[in-house]
Amino acid sequence: VGGPLEGGQAVADVLVQFGKQLRRVRTRQRISQERLAERAGLHRTYVSSVERGLRNISLLNIDKLARALEVPLTSLMPRG
Amino acid sequence: VGGPLEGGQAVADVLVQFGKQLRRVRTRQRISQERLAERAGLHRTYVSSVERGLRNISLLNIDKLARALEVPLTSLMPRG
Repeated sequence: VGGPLEGGQAVADVLVQFGKQLRRVRTRQRISQERLAERAGLHRTYVSSVERGLRNISLLNIDKLARALEVPLTSLMPRG
Repeated sequence: VGGPLEGGQAVADVLVQFGKQLRRVRTRQRISQERLAERAGLHRTYVSSVERGLRNISLLNIDKLARALEVPLTSLMPRG
């Protein structure tokens, strides 16, 4: 949990959808991955792989990203 | 990430709020922790500690719980 997903494992849809939603919210605010990572206290490469759905992100890190973007947690969740 | 939080560490508010919301949704459906755990493919003790805010749950496990409860991901997120 929290580490990179194994190569053999199918990339989980919820992680891909979360990543897309995160990218949508971030780009709408015209913030770079680097800037977001810095604000959230996370690594740029970590934020990049979260946006690609390659990480099983934890609730604490989701919360850090939401705070850094000043949006409610729910707005980062995949719809549907 | 994903493990139990250290005793010395302050319990993170977002985890406590998530746990309360999960319990609210579960009890509204009159499902036991055991039943929920079984449906979600998680351990009963794990579900119990998540509801108490003691675990930094990952997005994949949040998704499992939401599916087991047949609710959207957003409805398990803390409000505000």
